[in-house]
Amino acid sequence: MNAEGESKLQGVTTASANPVQDVPAQAQGQGPMAALAHRARLAVRTLAQSSSATRDKTLWAAAAALREATPAILEANAQDLAASTANDAFRDRLTLTPERVEAMARGLEEIADLPDPVGRVLEEWTRPNGLRIRRVATPVGVIGMIYESRPNVGADAAGLCIKSGNAVLLRGGSESLNSARAIHAAMQAGLRSAGLPEDAVLIAPDANRAHVAEMLTASGLIDLIIPRGGRSLVERVQREARVPVLAHAEGLCHTYIHSAADFAMARRIVLNAKMRRPGICGSTETLLMDAAIASALLPQIVADLAEKGCTFKADAAARAIVPDLPAATQKDFATEWLDAVLNIAVVDGVDEALDHIAQYGSSHTEAIVTADENMAIRFMNGVSSAVVMWNASTQFCDGGEFGFGAEIGIATGRFHARGPVGVEQLTTFRYEVIGTGQVRP
Amino acid sequence: MNAEGESKLQGVTTASANPVQDVPAQAQGQGPMAALAHRARLAVRTLAQSSSATRDKTLWAAAAALREATPAILEANAQDLAASTANDAFRDRLTLTPERVEAMARGLEEIADLPDPVGRVLEEWTRPNGLRIRRVATPVGVIGMIYESRPNVGADAAGLCIKSGNAVLLRGGSESLNSARAIHAAMQAGLRSAGLPEDAVLIAPDANRAHVAEMLTASGLIDLIIPRGGRSLVERVQREARVPVLAHAEGLCHTYIHSAADFAMARRIVLNAKMRRPGICGSTETLLMDAAIASALLPQIVADLAEKGCTFKADAAARAIVPDLPAATQKDFATEWLDAVLNIAVVDGVDEALDHIAQYGSSHTEAIVTADENMAIRFMNGVSSAVVMWNASTQFCDGGEFGFGAEIGIATGRFHARGPVGVEQLTTFRYEVIGTGQVRP
Repeated sequence: MNAEGESKLQGVTTASANPVQDVPAQAQGQGPMAALAHRARLAVRTLAQSSSATRDKTLWAAAAALREATPAILEANAQDLAASTANDAFRDRLTLTPERVEAMARGLEEIADLPDPVGRVLEEWTRPNGLRIRRVATPVGVIGMIYESRPNVGADAAGLCIKSGNAVLLRGGSESLNSARAIHAAMQAGLRSAGLPEDAVLIAPDANRAHVAEMLTASGLIDLIIPRGGRSLVERVQREARVPVLAHAEGLCHTYIHSAADFAMARRIVLNAKMRRPGICGSTETLLMDAAIASALLPQIVADLAEKGCTFKADAAARAIVPDLPAATQKDFATEWLDAVLNIAVVDGVDEALDHIAQYGSSHTEAIVTADENMAIRFMNGVSSAVVMWNASTQFCDGGEFGFGAEIGIATGRFHARGPVGVEQLTTFRYEVIGTGQVRP
Repeated sequence: MNAEGESKLQGVTTASANPVQDVPAQAQGQGPMAALAHRARLAVRTLAQSSSATRDKTLWAAAAALREATPAILEANAQDLAASTANDAFRDRLTLTPERVEAMARGLEEIADLPDPVGRVLEEWTRPNGLRIRRVATPVGVIGMIYESRPNVGADAAGLCIKSGNAVLLRGGSESLNSARAIHAAMQAGLRSAGLPEDAVLIAPDANRAHVAEMLTASGLIDLIIPRGGRSLVERVQREARVPVLAHAEGLCHTYIHSAADFAMARRIVLNAKMRRPGICGSTETLLMDAAIASALLPQIVADLAEKGCTFKADAAARAIVPDLPAATQKDFATEWLDAVLNIAVVDGVDEALDHIAQYGSSHTEAIVTADENMAIRFMNGVSSAVVMWNASTQFCDGGEFGFGAEIGIATGRFHARGPVGVEQLTTFRYEVIGTGQVRP
């Protein structure tokens, strides 16, 4: 075998004569989305064996096609906007501009520049009998992407899936259907010009809501569902899916200021964790502070945040220190504000902080600020969250900040990918066992 | 932080004052299994933070308790046998002897001797802004083990879960209830003597079949379900579970003899892959052989196997070479015989072999025998199975043979663990982000 820690990929373009036969019977003979998934399954057998260069060429060609199609994409987007009766925030997410189309194209080129996630040798060892065993990264298969109004999500998701050797079935929001179709056409142009099957990126034929339900139950046809959108969408997907799901329903993140914290660091981190961008899932919703330092530090932190326009929901102990803070209810501590609102609770040490997080957290991201290494380790071992930070802002929970490049989402489940999901997290693995004729005694 | 590539584990024994509050509401207030799972969730917060030495001490003490309780275990087993009306094969799996109890105890000691899978640093890197990011192995949480008549599965599963810092909820077959209870008592004795909570290993109160359904829907209470038993049990679990499942419904494994295979090696491997133990999931069910060599090699292989008592189901091309072979139907190629029966199909090269596997395989284990490296790589890249072997017997698909020590099962899904599931595969991970006060620009 070759030694560069890479499993060679052949440009095999032969596909199964029986593309759908590798699908469990119960998954067959369903509606239009199942039919599309069948086609994607056939295409992925070619894509999964395509060379890294071919997949990157596809992304560069798709970026060029997006730029070329800018007028058509903007016209399609204008139709969507004309038909939409949604509120301004929603319309802003739906709106495409020449700058936003260019950003989509550049995003595809940045994905192309990432290292190939397929074929990485994750582990390798040799058994006493001489068998060499390697764990090698492989594409997942067919990914179902369910998203709402942002049309760029379709291009980002398609780019990440192509890079990682996966086929993707896109189901965007009904309000963005025309925009999504125009973007999809550019992605298929990229596949064509690189000689890869167009069916590697497919899109729902219309805005029929039944398509979502069909995708969620397409076990054996779709290998993974990734929802991107509001909490109600994600929770519906998690509730109804019979297919593995990577998602996060909410990011109720905590920052705990331990008694051994550096005050200046604590003030800097809390201000950033809450106010840098209050609306992202990695923003801190609840501040936990040790009682031993609260009377000295809490007033400063409240002043820092209030100056930036933050409001507060505080427990009794916090209000005893800063009397004009509004009172927090249990429900407040369970609320992901995604806004310039901070819950505050005073605790008596790391165990009380861990109990609060166990009671109200969403397994997303938690942080401790302390100069005491043992307390930091105890905190990190005590949370079940996907990401735990020591002396850093929870707003660092992001694929780009982790060095993954673009991310397709954030996962809070316990398996496969947790935290930011980039191209490496869109691969699974196989064991390759390489012998010289060994038989088992 | 410490440098030994190990995340320190604190002996924290404080548990949440609100143990069940970290569970989604929809999972709460259910029946007896949910109540047990609530207790297991409380216990796992202590177990997950216990030291490696404490968990190993538990396993040694449980082994001693098993030996001490041998008379009681055999008496309970005699009650189960007296009440059972099952066939001989089933009774043999159900039967315990002093030797089998000793083997269970030794098994626990062997698990204790494995390296600690918890706290392994799986990856570690530093960002340009100085943030250190580490991926650290952590316990999964609460594991639901659903198994049939073999009482030893309860001891093995409990041992593997304790070693990996997980709590386990056991639901054994109704026929083995008394045996399972006696074994469970010994496991709890081990937990007690090491100062860990008894609730880390719990068992269904009785043989009520509703307990299984309750476990399968205990989302938020049970993190992972592992079924061990016949295909019908596993398929029911996969169909009904609303909780992640690690399992394999069948092992329909293929061995493909490529035209560039060494004949002596091919004969040795096929004989072992089929006949060493025809009843295990890693045994080869279907032989695929290139037409170019079939007339020279197939008669020898058929003779080798027939001499050991194997029978055959062959396609027309194979029967044209060895006329007295019985004809195979499509259904035969889709059948996991788990017996001394071999399907035979003659194919025209690697792509036809891959098409056959895509059509009939179960994503478990496939093998190619060839001296041609490019064909081997093409075959390995072309199968979606969890394990693919080159010049080795499919019977090597086993946790012990992989070097994992004991295995709790084999997984054929696409995520988390694939292939043999040992203690490392019973862990998940978290990201630890270690800063010096960084905030996000």
